[in-house]
Amino acid sequence: MPEFYDVIFERRDVRAEFTGEAVAEEVLMRILGAAHAAPSVGLSQPWDFVVVRDQGVREAFAEHVLREREVFAATLDAERAATFATIKVDGVRESTLSVVVTYDPGRGAPAVLGRHSIADAGLYSVCLAIQNLWLAATAEDLGVGWVSFYREEFVAGLLGIPEGIRPVAWLCLGPVTHRHRVPDLERKGWRGRVPLTDLVHEDGWREQNVRQPSSLLRHTRGAGPYGGHPGHMADSGDPVPAHLRLADVLRERITSGEIQLDSPLPSEESLRRDHGLDPDDVRRAVQVLSDEGLVYTGRDGNVYVSSRAEETGGG
Amino acid sequence: MPEFYDVIFERRDVRAEFTGEAVAEEVLMRILGAAHAAPSVGLSQPWDFVVVRDQGVREAFAEHVLREREVFAATLDAERAATFATIKVDGVRESTLSVVVTYDPGRGAPAVLGRHSIADAGLYSVCLAIQNLWLAATAEDLGVGWVSFYREEFVAGLLGIPEGIRPVAWLCLGPVTHRHRVPDLERKGWRGRVPLTDLVHEDGWREQNVRQPSSLLRHTRGAGPYGGHPGHMADSGDPVPAHLRLADVLRERITSGEIQLDSPLPSEESLRRDHGLDPDDVRRAVQVLSDEGLVYTGRDGNVYVSSRAEETGGG
Repeated sequence: MPEFYDVIFERRDVRAEFTGEAVAEEVLMRILGAAHAAPSVGLSQPWDFVVVRDQGVREAFAEHVLREREVFAATLDAERAATFATIKVDGVRESTLSVVVTYDPGRGAPAVLGRHSIADAGLYSVCLAIQNLWLAATAEDLGVGWVSFYREEFVAGLLGIPEGIRPVAWLCLGPVTHRHRVPDLERKGWRGRVPLTDLVHEDGWREQNVRQPSSLLRHTRGAGPYGGHPGHMADSGDPVPAHLRLADVLRERITSGEIQLDSPLPSEESLRRDHGLDPDDVRRAVQVLSDEGLVYTGRDGNVYVSSRAEETGGG
Repeated sequence: MPEFYDVIFERRDVRAEFTGEAVAEEVLMRILGAAHAAPSVGLSQPWDFVVVRDQGVREAFAEHVLREREVFAATLDAERAATFATIKVDGVRESTLSVVVTYDPGRGAPAVLGRHSIADAGLYSVCLAIQNLWLAATAEDLGVGWVSFYREEFVAGLLGIPEGIRPVAWLCLGPVTHRHRVPDLERKGWRGRVPLTDLVHEDGWREQNVRQPSSLLRHTRGAGPYGGHPGHMADSGDPVPAHLRLADVLRERITSGEIQLDSPLPSEESLRRDHGLDPDDVRRAVQVLSDEGLVYTGRDGNVYVSSRAEETGGG
């Protein structure tokens, strides 16, 4: 079993990397047991877990997700729509199974200790269980993808969930080829990471400037005052070291075909400048890609994209 | 650092066990870094963390909690009110500091990917961050208590949180003397643990019988079909082995004065029968208490409560 912080930082929201291989029953129950070990308001334990393996049910849900995807796409301007078109929003068909987590407000009623002043406290408890589930799956070396493109009433109807009980999450679960180090939405340029230091206040609220989407790599600019977990948080609370983040971005540009086979990578100098990194980080990023066989150093000293890149596929 | 599942099962909602000792800044930032590593809908990262050390602010909040406690107590019937009177609902004064976690719906707006169909998805993200925070604090051997006896508008006013940004949790944090193995509310008889097997459905909802509060020890009755993490989940998904749960219940009865000094414990036979346990589990539970100096075996072969019990204090 991995150590705690490794699980925290290696957890990802998985879409495309599911293999569909089997999950052992005892592994699934360990994961659900971790979810059930979550705290809940008044010890109400208001969650249920619907394990969905049935192909027909999953297919119906996947079709619904596709329609909701189109609803969202229609709200975007052209540039965002183009970015969104490259983003996969679910792995319902490819994953091994789904787990739907629900909230039952009647559990422990009428007097749920601690819920009288905060109506949503029971809903919060369900989310804590979901995060336990997600982390446990990661500890078991599985992937989880939370699908958000659905209407609650559709899911309730599909699964026969009684009125008053609310579906909170549809989670796809199963073995994966790998987990990315950088979230899909960041690699695809949808949204960047906010530095942790911008989100911490002392004793009361202070106004902040960082409310705009960050540019893709702004988070790699220098280490903030907050160090953190060794080897994980070199960059102001960012769990992924700068050179691995740069490697991920370059890998994405290579596998997407943006940088073509046998073309040179941007120079070390321009990578350093564009991403605000130390020369050492740039060299280490290139080394990572070289170790993976994605790039090679030519006779002229430049770094080129290797034809092996073809085999690695997209995103 | 502990292993992942140890953290999951050793996490507790702490009230009375805070020592007030200092928390190193780098430890706090590791914990907040773990929170910030949580998944969020559309990578919106809609959380902020207000670290509250100021004594005046904490005192004002503690007073507010006391008033809300009275509001809840007034809703209970006599029997529940008597049970509730023994339950501590916060450790605001005793803990080292507080962390208030907030939700900013404007983060990443207007188009938060995945939030168009589920209005609460951003709120869910904040809860996932809270669970990461809670688990990380546990991994750092600290305690966390989520205080739910407050009105959101009071906290917003107290901390100067701008309109539209919502306080989701007030968390007390700091070193603790120890963490109980069984939640306060279970030890105090407020509510029991629901067997995991009652909460798992296959492919669709099935009606269930277990919607009533469980009796205190019903969860110790026999192992269900779902094994789980070795050493943690002997009892149908329950993370704590039966003998440790029985030891916790007996410890509570001893330290609360219900079983008096130099009085005998209930017989092994009656403990076995009342709690539906194997004789071996009962013997192991008594051994745990004996190792702690809480009980001793008399010349007549009966087990008595040792006068050392006086020193251990309540719950």
